Amino acid sequence: MEPAKVKEWLSLMTLEEKASLCSGKDYWRTNALKRLGIPSVVMMNGPHGLRKLDEYEVNFDVSDSAPATCFPSASALASSWDRELLTEIGVALGKECHAAGVDILLGPGVNLKRSPLNGRNFEYFSEDPYLAGEMAKAYINGVQSQNVGTSLKHYACNNRESRRMTTDAVVEERALRELYLNAFEIAVKGSQPWTIMSAYNRVNGAYCSEHPHLLNEILKEEWGFEGAVVSDWGAVNVLSEGIRTGLDLEMPSSDGYGPANIIKAVQSGALTEEALDRAAERVLQLAVLSAKRSGQPIGCDYESHHQLARKAAAESMVLLKNEAGLLPLSKEAQRKIALIGAMVRAPKIQGGGSSHMKPTQVDDVAAAIAAKLGEGGELVYAQGYDLDSEAINMAWEEEARAAAAEAEVAIVIVGLPERCESEAYDREHLRIPYNQAEIIRAVAQVQERVIVVLCNGSPVEMPWADHAGGIVEAYLGGQAFGGALADILFGDANPCGKLAETFPVDLPSTPVYLGYPGEGDRCEYREGLFIGYRYYDSRNIEPLYPFGFGLSYTSFEYSDLRLDKQDFSDQETLAVRLRVRNTGDRTGKETIQLYVKDKVSRLVRPEKELKAFAKVELHAGEAKEVAFTLEKRAFAYYDPELKDWHAETGEFDILIGQSSRHILLEETVTLRSTTTIARQYDRQSSLSDLLADPRVEPIIRQFTQGMSDSQDKHSSEMMAVFIREMPLRSLVAFSKGAFTDEMLDGLLHHANTVGAGRV
Amino acid sequence: MEPAKVKEWLSLMTLEEKASLCSGKDYWRTNALKRLGIPSVVMMNGPHGLRKLDEYEVNFDVSDSAPATCFPSASALASSWDRELLTEIGVALGKECHAAGVDILLGPGVNLKRSPLNGRNFEYFSEDPYLAGEMAKAYINGVQSQNVGTSLKHYACNNRESRRMTTDAVVEERALRELYLNAFEIAVKGSQPWTIMSAYNRVNGAYCSEHPHLLNEILKEEWGFEGAVVSDWGAVNVLSEGIRTGLDLEMPSSDGYGPANIIKAVQSGALTEEALDRAAERVLQLAVLSAKRSGQPIGCDYESHHQLARKAAAESMVLLKNEAGLLPLSKEAQRKIALIGAMVRAPKIQGGGSSHMKPTQVDDVAAAIAAKLGEGGELVYAQGYDLDSEAINMAWEEEARAAAAEAEVAIVIVGLPERCESEAYDREHLRIPYNQAEIIRAVAQVQERVIVVLCNGSPVEMPWADHAGGIVEAYLGGQAFGGALADILFGDANPCGKLAETFPVDLPSTPVYLGYPGEGDRCEYREGLFIGYRYYDSRNIEPLYPFGFGLSYTSFEYSDLRLDKQDFSDQETLAVRLRVRNTGDRTGKETIQLYVKDKVSRLVRPEKELKAFAKVELHAGEAKEVAFTLEKRAFAYYDPELKDWHAETGEFDILIGQSSRHILLEETVTLRSTTTIARQYDRQSSLSDLLADPRVEPIIRQFTQGMSDSQDKHSSEMMAVFIREMPLRSLVAFSKGAFTDEMLDGLLHHANTVGAGRV
Repeated sequence: MEPAKVKEWLSLMTLEEKASLCSGKDYWRTNALKRLGIPSVVMMNGPHGLRKLDEYEVNFDVSDSAPATCFPSASALASSWDRELLTEIGVALGKECHAAGVDILLGPGVNLKRSPLNGRNFEYFSEDPYLAGEMAKAYINGVQSQNVGTSLKHYACNNRESRRMTTDAVVEERALRELYLNAFEIAVKGSQPWTIMSAYNRVNGAYCSEHPHLLNEILKEEWGFEGAVVSDWGAVNVLSEGIRTGLDLEMPSSDGYGPANIIKAVQSGALTEEALDRAAERVLQLAVLSAKRSGQPIGCDYESHHQLARKAAAESMVLLKNEAGLLPLSKEAQRKIALIGAMVRAPKIQGGGSSHMKPTQVDDVAAAIAAKLGEGGELVYAQGYDLDSEAINMAWEEEARAAAAEAEVAIVIVGLPERCESEAYDREHLRIPYNQAEIIRAVAQVQERVIVVLCNGSPVEMPWADHAGGIVEAYLGGQAFGGALADILFGDANPCGKLAETFPVDLPSTPVYLGYPGEGDRCEYREGLFIGYRYYDSRNIEPLYPFGFGLSYTSFEYSDLRLDKQDFSDQETLAVRLRVRNTGDRTGKETIQLYVKDKVSRLVRPEKELKAFAKVELHAGEAKEVAFTLEKRAFAYYDPELKDWHAETGEFDILIGQSSRHILLEETVTLRSTTTIARQYDRQSSLSDLLADPRVEPIIRQFTQGMSDSQDKHSSEMMAVFIREMPLRSLVAFSKGAFTDEMLDGLLHHANTVGAGRV
Repeated sequence: MEPAKVKEWLSLMTLEEKASLCSGKDYWRTNALKRLGIPSVVMMNGPHGLRKLDEYEVNFDVSDSAPATCFPSASALASSWDRELLTEIGVALGKECHAAGVDILLGPGVNLKRSPLNGRNFEYFSEDPYLAGEMAKAYINGVQSQNVGTSLKHYACNNRESRRMTTDAVVEERALRELYLNAFEIAVKGSQPWTIMSAYNRVNGAYCSEHPHLLNEILKEEWGFEGAVVSDWGAVNVLSEGIRTGLDLEMPSSDGYGPANIIKAVQSGALTEEALDRAAERVLQLAVLSAKRSGQPIGCDYESHHQLARKAAAESMVLLKNEAGLLPLSKEAQRKIALIGAMVRAPKIQGGGSSHMKPTQVDDVAAAIAAKLGEGGELVYAQGYDLDSEAINMAWEEEARAAAAEAEVAIVIVGLPERCESEAYDREHLRIPYNQAEIIRAVAQVQERVIVVLCNGSPVEMPWADHAGGIVEAYLGGQAFGGALADILFGDANPCGKLAETFPVDLPSTPVYLGYPGEGDRCEYREGLFIGYRYYDSRNIEPLYPFGFGLSYTSFEYSDLRLDKQDFSDQETLAVRLRVRNTGDRTGKETIQLYVKDKVSRLVRPEKELKAFAKVELHAGEAKEVAFTLEKRAFAYYDPELKDWHAETGEFDILIGQSSRHILLEETVTLRSTTTIARQYDRQSSLSDLLADPRVEPIIRQFTQGMSDSQDKHSSEMMAVFIREMPLRSLVAFSKGAFTDEMLDGLLHHANTVGAGRV
């Protein structure tokens, strides 16, 4: 099937046929056109594994879906900070889709973690747009290398689950561009996903499925998105309006309601047929892309995918605490281990909602750990708590205490059951269930060596942290969670995960505590740019664990930070190099994080922002050079007046760290802007504004000379400020006729036409 | 002079004469009209003392002004929480104005302390609108009882000094009404100030001097303000626009520019002569009010005013820390006191800027303290630090250490010199000068008993607090600061001041840290309602010292909280009573604070809000009953949709405390709203919205029955949420024709006309 085919098809299609292409055939497919030999395109849920249903009608029962590999969910994968790993997983997912006859896998999600309360955060990567965008790009490139499509979602600002179908995210343009859209922008430009999924919610008043600014202007025109925009399932408001403003495909089927609406709009002139053609063309393109795969389904090595899932889970786990080298556990010396928690037998390996799928197999956690134990090693299991309630079961607690008391170490697995965290509703607090927190406390009373393993999709408060000598954040680890956990606990894998989101001390200290979820349908993003570490670091609020944090069983030394220029223009690049050495005694991986801090700015900016990172593997004693290249965008903010990215002339700090709070190396560089900004003055401009402009300053100086000549030193200073900040119109009113309206008009004309200044 | 005179005058005046009345004659007077016998009205700066100039031209040199009593500044006075005291001071100020031939004293200021960085905070009362409004009301009633006018300022949202003449305060209506305007509203309704002063800045785009919403609609129509609106000096943009929208008087003179503008506007029809008449009438009224005083200036007992200033300063001081009963100092036992700090000789008794005035006398701090010492007592003074710099003078530091080492107690007076805090510019940090902090540390190295006395207009960080056993916040104490301080230190006055503002731990923890002062002229009040304790308490951020906090030399016990109703309607009042006992061994005053907490609300509300307070004096062992009466407004928020105050049906906690963080008694009461709110539904309304409405719920139930019948328990729950939150238009698209657009229109018509629901 040739791309040129699309134009030919279009030319042969009736209005009705075109309209039908822009709406689903059923729950999971586009409409086919048998007359022209155009096949349906099949879309199925992801993103951490394929949820393949045999039928194409709505079915929320996961047991009816076909088995596939359940990889760790996005919040886990992002903690790997490993682009190669994400691509490798993408390739595996692509193969499984190919094998199952699925054309497009509905993912990944790059919505930012504005609040840890969002019930669907487990499906998203990070609180940082650069990290989220890089992870999505790598994943998409993997899937699409198999000629299977993706759907980058949910575009945009789908940051709450409650009332997601009617809520209006009120967001300033800067926060949109610098945060929420930026993750999408990176992925779109770097991987051209076949589709992008428009979100349920509204942004600044308009539904995301009929949002000319988000769809036509930014996504398609500015970023050059070549794929199709597909609505989230049921997100369409008025389909013809969607098509007019940049939507291409309504999903699922609306049983003819949507196409009828399109036809009526074209007939009435409200929608041009050209706009419909553009949409239909993008939908047809999906069929062309899908046809690049061999017609026959392929086989799939699910066992190797399971091993990949195990590697991925291990690379994603974040070691948060390791007192006195409690971890890794010795295989030989360990004689008796207590393994506690209902999540041992029923591990929380994925989240709830549309992404929930059926794994090919699930590691037995206890068996995986037992397999690590040497001769004479023993594992004692105790359930400890009930998953379905918060109530303490005294008998189970006693059993857990007894098991812990006679063991050499207790491993307690806790986390968030589905009732606490899922698509479709938000969390109400950040606690793990009461009986789980209690079991940690109870075990710690009888056992000094307690390791807590967390299975959850987003941050939890840890008032019990003092009871644990070791804390492993395993997130939702996928079907090989058990094996990966055993690898980490016994040192067969060296922890290298770093938090892709800040863990706060408590809910009130989170960035949008008072603004989340908003009032009714109105959700104002008043915090602006200050979410995640941008908030904690700018306001100097101590988190429980900072963004980018994660321990290793080895240690690393950073040195020799070099910049290739001390001074550069915004049209040049800046090369950054440093040396990292593994100073411990075992092989390990380290993620080196580069943050940029704008020292002085006209607009308010975060304390620092992540602009590059690299993950390197180092053997004991080995050193490597790490290199980054920074471009203008790494230093720029989005200027709403310029309607463009702008990097101001001035000094910037290049910060290299192991987390946003642990900066090890630092250099300062000066950037020169080449952007010309024309300033405009009017009667309300202040003298100080004009005095700051070298073109106008001499004229003003002459006029204001002698206006401030009081005897009293301080009063004189105050008078000087008073005059400097006075609007020009006040000069006219108080000059006793020395400065007239006509003179002011002349001055303004002069100032506004002399030329353009630079910032 | 009769009020009827005004109408007669107006009828005799030419257009030019009317226009001239609406602009100043010179810097401090309105235009007289000799032809009709209309005198000028003289306005002079306050608010903590009269700044009377002999000439009426601009003069920033305070040495040219006549002496008058310098009372403590507003931030000090508000700490007294004493309405009677404020009225007493108002009476004294009124008499001094009368004596000096001044008709209107330009004050008080009730702008709220949005950020402690505002350089003019010392001239304002509080971060809380109720406390600020009550203080202003009491002050105004005092001044105006002498037939001298006041000017309530700066209306509104003049919350920064930098760029105050051009800045635009972008504030949501709720924050305006519930916070910033509320202080004005209380004062206007409770004391009818002769004038209100419109601020320099813009609010939501319009200059405060030509702001129809703030001036005509809210101030004059809603609140029934009867006085004149006078512009802050030089705040007028286009005078005719000001007159049209509610301004009455431009100050100072614009040498005919303003009147010419009015005449032109009337002639062109842009301004009606009726609007001009209304303004001129209000200005003329000022002359009528002024004429109520006897024509001859009166004498004034400045000595008794000095004693009043001393009492006021003592009542305003806040004892922040008193470790191990370090204070009060014993007159007899104290043999040697070290008194340290340049502020001993040059006490900071008032702030910088237009309010700065010439005191009749200034207490000698050292002499006042020495006078308290018994036989054999000795006072050793050391300067310790230089006021004009931050640099440490090693010799002075050594001298201070020596003095402290050989004394039994060291009193260190520190604070903010004018360069750190003043009208016209903002503070850049919250520190006291470096050399002052250092002297505290140095003295503490050689002396265990250190008392720090703070002279500042707004909060400072206290990283040195651990070095001080006692901390007295004296604010800017006025001319009798020295005597009052001695009274407090030696127990002749029992500290009873309570903070009228939160003292934060540091600048980054303040509510608008990242938003202050804004970007250029744009200042977005994104924190909304969350300033002051509303922020700290709602976000659970520990302040250094909370709002309402202050220690005493005695102790109080609160008991027997009773409400006269457990359940009441918003048209009834709620009587609150409790018992307070002095459980210590000396007479003291206590301020009992009543906060209201809305337990559940449709709109986001602060954790608690001050709604009543009372200050009572109790002898040792004495008990008194304290009674409060609460009305609807104490429970209401401003509903921007209703455009009215609204108290929701539901539970409220009545909290009685010694500070916002130290609640001693608590009761819950249920309020029943009598407000009828008509809900409107449209295609975007969600099912859950309609299901929450008892009128519509049955119709919807019938329709959605059976829409959620999946097998899987969790998926079923998710599906139920999905359907509940679905907008109505989606029901049409996905009902397979079972529910048509026509049916939806019918349903909406039905729902919107059935009647009105209640909230």
